Amino acid sequence: MPLGTDYVRQNCAIARSLEIVGERWTLLIIRDLFYGLRRYSDLRKHIGLPPAVLTDRLARLIEEDVVERVPGRGAREEYALTTKGAKLWPVLNGLSQWGNEHYVEPESRSRLTHAVCGAQLDEVGGCPQCGVTPAAADVEIQKPSFGTADPYAQALRTPHRLLEPLRL
Amino acid sequence: MPLGTDYVRQNCAIARSLEIVGERWTLLIIRDLFYGLRRYSDLRKHIGLPPAVLTDRLARLIEEDVVERVPGRGAREEYALTTKGAKLWPVLNGLSQWGNEHYVEPESRSRLTHAVCGAQLDEVGGCPQCGVTPAAADVEIQKPSFGTADPYAQALRTPHRLLEPLRL
Repeated sequence: MPLGTDYVRQNCAIARSLEIVGERWTLLIIRDLFYGLRRYSDLRKHIGLPPAVLTDRLARLIEEDVVERVPGRGAREEYALTTKGAKLWPVLNGLSQWGNEHYVEPESRSRLTHAVCGAQLDEVGGCPQCGVTPAAADVEIQKPSFGTADPYAQALRTPHRLLEPLRL
Repeated sequence: MPLGTDYVRQNCAIARSLEIVGERWTLLIIRDLFYGLRRYSDLRKHIGLPPAVLTDRLARLIEEDVVERVPGRGAREEYALTTKGAKLWPVLNGLSQWGNEHYVEPESRSRLTHAVCGAQLDEVGGCPQCGVTPAAADVEIQKPSFGTADPYAQALRTPHRLLEPLRL
């Protein structure tokens, strides 16, 4: 394998993970699947990706059992995170917390709460009220409102559980 | 900005973070800095990176105050994570846990303990004994032994705190 074209196959869990999710754009696709975007056209428009790139990244994620095809409305196929894919939530949450702290104004940050009790999650994704770190399916997200006409931003303004299909 | 060449500048903390650490190889460089590798030549050899790539990635991380130049032994300059950089630990830990669960045999996994009490950390990086999620500087790592002659693997076999310079 030529130097510099693939992550080294040392016995390192971080390198192994990055072989799967370290491709450019892949973590933004996974982010959108956590948000509940499920249609190919929605993923493409929300991220602003050329179709060839989105198709390639989704194929790789399906091959690795991170994403699966699920039946959508009508006869359309949609995409969703598998159980394995949903376990990437701590990675996404970590990127989100770090980005918020250093690059996003407080009023522009997403609000994450524990869907079970309504308490706001702490910076490592834990619920201070219940003393647990909820899995993604028990996390409710609300993105701040910016008065934009973007249908995705509008849908994300309403609190909803991660992984649940977003109503657009 | 042409489509597909940069992460979208939507008001998203995850996209903002990926603009800084989403470059190919960057998270492996940050991993090695957590492990305590600090010299340019050690980073290059351990990751197996062409010098131009390592130089470029380090420059970007220094520009964003994730990495800083620190005095090393003799007159040599070394590299270390800043306070801001060390706050990326939950991201690295998340990638490590996910990689371990899905791609690494149990006997080949790194052992992470809370340096304060010695308890093994749980899958979200929390200390079950103290009820806290330790910062990287309070985490001790030990990589399993594989009888290799690789000096980095040998050094990482001895338990040591993250961020402390690795004795090679």
